[in-house]
Amino acid sequence: MTPLGYRFAAGYAGIRKKPDDDLALMVSDVPATAAGVFTQNQVCAAPVRLSIEHLKKSGNVCRAIVVNAGNANCATPTMNKVARASARGAARLMKVSRQQILLASTGVIGEPLDENLILKALPELQQSLQPEGFEACAAAIMTTDTYPKTAAAEVETRNGTVRIAGMAKGAGMIQPNMATMLSFIFTDAAFEAKVLSRMLRTAVERSFNRISVDGDTSTNDTVLLLANGASGIEPKGADRTLVQDALNRVAEELAVGIVGDGEGSKKVLTIDIEGAPSNAAAVRLARAIANSPLVKTALAGADPNWGRIISSAGASGVKFDPSKVDIHLNGHLICRRGVRADFAEADVQATMELDESSVKFRIRGAGKGKARFWTCDLTKEYIEINADYRT
Amino acid sequence: MTPLGYRFAAGYAGIRKKPDDDLALMVSDVPATAAGVFTQNQVCAAPVRLSIEHLKKSGNVCRAIVVNAGNANCATPTMNKVARASARGAARLMKVSRQQILLASTGVIGEPLDENLILKALPELQQSLQPEGFEACAAAIMTTDTYPKTAAAEVETRNGTVRIAGMAKGAGMIQPNMATMLSFIFTDAAFEAKVLSRMLRTAVERSFNRISVDGDTSTNDTVLLLANGASGIEPKGADRTLVQDALNRVAEELAVGIVGDGEGSKKVLTIDIEGAPSNAAAVRLARAIANSPLVKTALAGADPNWGRIISSAGASGVKFDPSKVDIHLNGHLICRRGVRADFAEADVQATMELDESSVKFRIRGAGKGKARFWTCDLTKEYIEINADYRT
Repeated sequence: MTPLGYRFAAGYAGIRKKPDDDLALMVSDVPATAAGVFTQNQVCAAPVRLSIEHLKKSGNVCRAIVVNAGNANCATPTMNKVARASARGAARLMKVSRQQILLASTGVIGEPLDENLILKALPELQQSLQPEGFEACAAAIMTTDTYPKTAAAEVETRNGTVRIAGMAKGAGMIQPNMATMLSFIFTDAAFEAKVLSRMLRTAVERSFNRISVDGDTSTNDTVLLLANGASGIEPKGADRTLVQDALNRVAEELAVGIVGDGEGSKKVLTIDIEGAPSNAAAVRLARAIANSPLVKTALAGADPNWGRIISSAGASGVKFDPSKVDIHLNGHLICRRGVRADFAEADVQATMELDESSVKFRIRGAGKGKARFWTCDLTKEYIEINADYRT
Repeated sequence: MTPLGYRFAAGYAGIRKKPDDDLALMVSDVPATAAGVFTQNQVCAAPVRLSIEHLKKSGNVCRAIVVNAGNANCATPTMNKVARASARGAARLMKVSRQQILLASTGVIGEPLDENLILKALPELQQSLQPEGFEACAAAIMTTDTYPKTAAAEVETRNGTVRIAGMAKGAGMIQPNMATMLSFIFTDAAFEAKVLSRMLRTAVERSFNRISVDGDTSTNDTVLLLANGASGIEPKGADRTLVQDALNRVAEELAVGIVGDGEGSKKVLTIDIEGAPSNAAAVRLARAIANSPLVKTALAGADPNWGRIISSAGASGVKFDPSKVDIHLNGHLICRRGVRADFAEADVQATMELDESSVKFRIRGAGKGKARFWTCDLTKEYIEINADYRT
């Protein structure tokens, strides 16, 4: 069940050529507390800048999110004007302050976005707002995604049930620090802005910041979390921990969904690092393995190539003794103390044909640093998609 | 003409399955001063370790280099024993100290290399050593390379001519800091060890450290430079500068050759950064663009996608104002002050069908930092090669 007090609508505004829905309106019936995490790219799209500005000016209050696909509204002379006009139009329609409108865009960079397409389509979307519009919005925000990604959780607190639901779009250009991915998460619990921001950062750090599709980062990445309090519950203490755990699970499910739907990807690889000098070092090791094109093509080819795994870790910048490294692939020990373990290659290969594989990379006696990371295989279809994206 | 006082031989030792030459012996008739630059990967192959040890113990003197392809002699329990046995065998045959033998290996990681294959093949190689064997050695060290890469230069000094000749192998796994690439450069000039080492580092920094094929780094990278003084000339002052320039050109030609022969690559892209806050920042910007799979697939698809170029630069970690950026592609201004310039897309696309393209990325008023970098396109053939490398 969708969190209480939210309504959603999607429609086709004519922004992308293919007549699939490309505009989504997501509304909280009452002012919601909002938190956001945004791209770190120096080249930053207008909707990202404006959302950051609005969060600040509104004191982290949000009534509606307007999202378009098909055009990133980035790196054009008109981008700021277009973003402001869209927010103003939505605010007028909703009869709220324009600072309570947040925006996100995804699609091609550098092509002007026509604000009139958005302004013309919004009234009809407002008319059709309903709690059941959630899935349609998840579909409308897709670009090269092949299916909508949603996740939900319910938490039983001492004072009753609170709900969390999220959607995400991703596909290519995903890596740590959130690249060309959008995610919108809603809860009917109530939280203070400071608490909500911390909760979102915690969840993002262990989900969207731990995935890699092609190591590229984008100009438009946005994760928004709204808490409207429509459940009448403000979780505290142990209850808040329960909600945080549920939020982490929702974010993780969305993030892994993005990896699983990476451009051209057919398989997900979960990478666990254990025994690193620190958690930060574990993340660096995991990221180096996750971003390695040679590891990703080996996964595509179902090749238990532990040499590529240890070699990419070795290039991560983290110092370790290779002769202390054990690597498990899908539960099979394939590298023991830095050299090939005694394993049946055909058996391990067979396990790598499945949709999901896992690597455990353990350093003996170096420390207690741990990290989990997700990546996908690199296939010919990735090249096809990206060599022909605009043409 | 090959530098004086060197002889070369190549043969098939049975290390790789395909019966192409896989062993090379390169000999200086007199003790040569030697300098080396090696992989920074924590997982470091036995021949790399032993060569570093030998350079130190011999006081940077080298008589012969033994190189095998088909097996990296890395991450196996026997790797150190195999490397020592190979060096000992070559030293006995050449009647020199074993510390004057340098080694390099390239090929699959983690599979034991049989030292007897090398020891059995070396005597015949020694019998067939000749100055003309240079090209055969350049072919014998190849793995997934499709052609041998060599470059040469002659320098007229005040005291006569000195010669430089180099060979390299590369293909996949190339990125700055030299990944799975080997290069051996020979000169008949004389230099002190300290001078030679500095000259090699200078040349490597602006050639092998400025290329990217797939951003991965390897366990076996080695560049060796030998100076045997057979020309009777020890260049100093302005003459030394001339030799450095020639060495830079030879190294650059080899490095660009590696990019041009990157796995599955069909096109080379030269990236020039201008106006960065510093030279180091320029290198970071260039590397981010060069390593971006989206830029590399756009090149494959002949897509003048300046948005991907500016976005990958924006993710480099270097701070800059996007509205100060101009981008030229093959001489056409495609991005002016951070937004799309007025250019004929079809015309620029046509230029991108050629073997060589160039990007100039200029930041107005930020500084004087400059860097040049080379990368290649990312194609379906890269995936084919790397998904099936071992099988």
